[in-house]
Amino acid sequence: MPTNPPTTDLDAAMMARALELAARGEGRVEPNPMVGCVITQQGEVVGEGWHQQHGGPHAEVNALAAAGDRAAGGTAYVTLEPCCHTGKTPPCTGALLTAGVARVVVAVRDPFPQVNGGGLQQLTDAGVVYEVGVGEADARALLAPYLKLIERGRPWVIAKWAMTLDGKLATSSGSSQWISSPESRELVHRLRGRVDAVIVGAGTARDDDPLLTARPAGPRTAARIVLGEIPPASQLVKTADQAPVISVVPAPGAHHKVPPGVESLAVKGRTHTERLAAVLDELGARRMTNVLIEGGARGLGAAFDGGLIDEVHAFIAPKLCGGADAPSPIGGHGLADMTKALRLTGVRIETPGGDVYLRGRVEQGVS
Amino acid sequence: MPTNPPTTDLDAAMMARALELAARGEGRVEPNPMVGCVITQQGEVVGEGWHQQHGGPHAEVNALAAAGDRAAGGTAYVTLEPCCHTGKTPPCTGALLTAGVARVVVAVRDPFPQVNGGGLQQLTDAGVVYEVGVGEADARALLAPYLKLIERGRPWVIAKWAMTLDGKLATSSGSSQWISSPESRELVHRLRGRVDAVIVGAGTARDDDPLLTARPAGPRTAARIVLGEIPPASQLVKTADQAPVISVVPAPGAHHKVPPGVESLAVKGRTHTERLAAVLDELGARRMTNVLIEGGARGLGAAFDGGLIDEVHAFIAPKLCGGADAPSPIGGHGLADMTKALRLTGVRIETPGGDVYLRGRVEQGVS
Ligand SMILES: NC(=O)c1ccc[n+]([C@@H]2O[C@H](COP(=O)([O-])OP(=O)(O)OC[C@H]3O[C@@H](n4cnc5c(N)ncnc54)[C@H](OP(=O)(O)O)[C@@H]3O)[C@@H](O)[C@H]2O)c1
Ligand SMILES: NC(=O)c1ccc[n+]([C@@H]2O[C@H](COP(=O)([O-])OP(=O)(O)OC[C@H]3O[C@@H](n4cnc5c(N)ncnc54)[C@H](OP(=O)(O)O)[C@@H]3O)[C@@H](O)[C@H]2O)c1
Repeated sequence: MPTNPPTTDLDAAMMARALELAARGEGRVEPNPMVGCVITQQGEVVGEGWHQQHGGPHAEVNALAAAGDRAAGGTAYVTLEPCCHTGKTPPCTGALLTAGVARVVVAVRDPFPQVNGGGLQQLTDAGVVYEVGVGEADARALLAPYLKLIERGRPWVIAKWAMTLDGKLATSSGSSQWISSPESRELVHRLRGRVDAVIVGAGTARDDDPLLTARPAGPRTAARIVLGEIPPASQLVKTADQAPVISVVPAPGAHHKVPPGVESLAVKGRTHTERLAAVLDELGARRMTNVLIEGGARGLGAAFDGGLIDEVHAFIAPKLCGGADAPSPIGGHGLADMTKALRLTGVRIETPGGDVYLRGRVEQGVS
Repeated sequence: MPTNPPTTDLDAAMMARALELAARGEGRVEPNPMVGCVITQQGEVVGEGWHQQHGGPHAEVNALAAAGDRAAGGTAYVTLEPCCHTGKTPPCTGALLTAGVARVVVAVRDPFPQVNGGGLQQLTDAGVVYEVGVGEADARALLAPYLKLIERGRPWVIAKWAMTLDGKLATSSGSSQWISSPESRELVHRLRGRVDAVIVGAGTARDDDPLLTARPAGPRTAARIVLGEIPPASQLVKTADQAPVISVVPAPGAHHKVPPGVESLAVKGRTHTERLAAVLDELGARRMTNVLIEGGARGLGAAFDGGLIDEVHAFIAPKLCGGADAPSPIGGHGLADMTKALRLTGVRIETPGGDVYLRGRVEQGVS
């Protein structure tokens, strides 16, 4: 029995649908939030919409357009508080009021400084009934990267690796191609195609000479960032005209030479972890929402030791390679006490091409 | 369309059923083979049986008892060639002939020296039609430990470990309790309860002070074997009256003192791998069919480097612990080239208590 009478199973179902629609914008709308909207009239859906593309119309506007006249007197389910400011498009509160929507149900308030309750206030002022918090946990999960960027000024950090069943990222001599199946690698390319940056350590740039591009291309083109120096003859340098390449160097880094076409990013910090955190601050300032750290062991170790990892995508191949000197995915200092190990939540498991693909988010209060 | 007329879908289905029955003997019949038997009359099952307990009646005898008079003129499906010698029980060929079975279908010949085609010969001599090879691949897979013990003189080696998602067997300071879920650990206890020996390295005996018993007890009681010295105050020594404890020492090992109640097993060999292989020879001579190596990294590394691992049971917890110095499951020298990594086949995946439990066998031609 709902304690709050207007929140019904219908409300929950409509918001779940709106969240489903919102998720379709992943990779296309950042640094904007993914937003979905469902308009109902007497409990029937009369319009659906989502924010499809950065710079394009917002979810509410798309849903209202679909509903047409049938929006008047209806309910709008929106996964995020409607905006009340003119950005690339006019404010959505205005559109909802013009359409004569009578009730607005919102999953989560927008902490974006120019909204932050202002949208809800405008609705109230106009006499529209509104409710906040329906489907909030799911909306927060979907919007976590957006919320983190606003609240912490840093992008959401996804750590990705492929390892053998005996926990190796590479053999003791640095051979790692290929651990995972073609199907797994296809999924990695999809990940790359929706993030703002792909980060690797200098060891990986040197040992694997990777391209770090999404093939086929995804909705966005990630910058390719190397923690340390990039070999001048590398594929990264050769393809610097196709997608940005950034070499992270310690500040002051005046002596540091970077190959032509490569941006040099000088960051301060005593340790690898401090410098990586400084890189994330800079990427946050550039409004990057999602970044993918693809290794190697030391790069991921630096991230882990700083509590910088938000989400993990691990591919585990049913293979053994052995070797006390072969690196496992996360190097660095690590933890001393196994009872303190970081737990993942929201774990999902698939089996692409016979690998185990496990992803999840680092339990909160840690990153 | 079957090319061999008598082998029909019915034959295949009956043999599959017989194999299902055979598997019920796992952990109870070794060093005997697991065997199942189905008796049919005009295509109807009239009796089923399996070898239930070492020293007890064979599958054929149990199935014939269930069939009674209805066996005469019928077909017997047996997963392994019927025995023709008097061991703990009289020969099964005799029982089949006495019951008047008209046709015998066998999955696989028994390489056991006192059988090895002799059972089939006796059937032929008595005018019974027989066929070999129905369901042979499945029967060989089920009987692999039995066949290995006869053909190689060594037990089937199962490697087991629990690791974090970032491939750690323990933290850098040696903490490993507990990586996996209670549900996973329950499965480990079931494994222990069906094998002849549980083997660990001296590092594990020292760091974890494990009991290595099955709790609750399973159908058999495994000997507990430590590669190296056993601390005198350890739980293993204290419980030496409950299950055998063996300390493996390099030969000549005269200086080596073992605690009271502990057997000292001196083996020759220049390397850890050679000594482990010698241990397996000795356990084979004692007719142990299955042994479980539970780590640590160096123990499993010694096994891997010698190509001694037949089967893997890996538990992967959705946790991260980090650390370049934390051991991953298989130490030793390992492989240099990732394309040479050992592949597992027949992989099965479960998710006990949120862990990934992946098991499979090392692809043939390697172990
Ligand atoms: N299976 C996979 O998914 C996968 C993915 C990537 C890589 N790999 C394998 O991993 C191996 C490379 O791993 P790795 O640990 O040797 O190298 P890495 O993590 O790729 O790079 C480490 C190097 O980056 C430098 N670096 C500069 N700034 C850093 C910072 N902020 N944080 C961390 N490192 C920084 C380090 O400098 P210092 O020398 O000063 O420490 C070191 O030289 C290769 O064999 C590669 O094949 C596998
Ligand atoms: N998560 C899990 O499933 C799991 C399971 C078991 C252990 N562990 C963890 O693993 C760690 C122990 O691993 P480890 O690698 O240090 O130790 P280990 O493999 O348990 O034992 C290695 C020790 O055994 C000696 N040894 C003697 N004969 C050997 C032979 N034939 N093959 C291999 N070793 C032989 C070695 O001698 P030398 O000194 O002469 O090399 C060395 O002292 C502990 O922290 C434990 O908690 C975790």
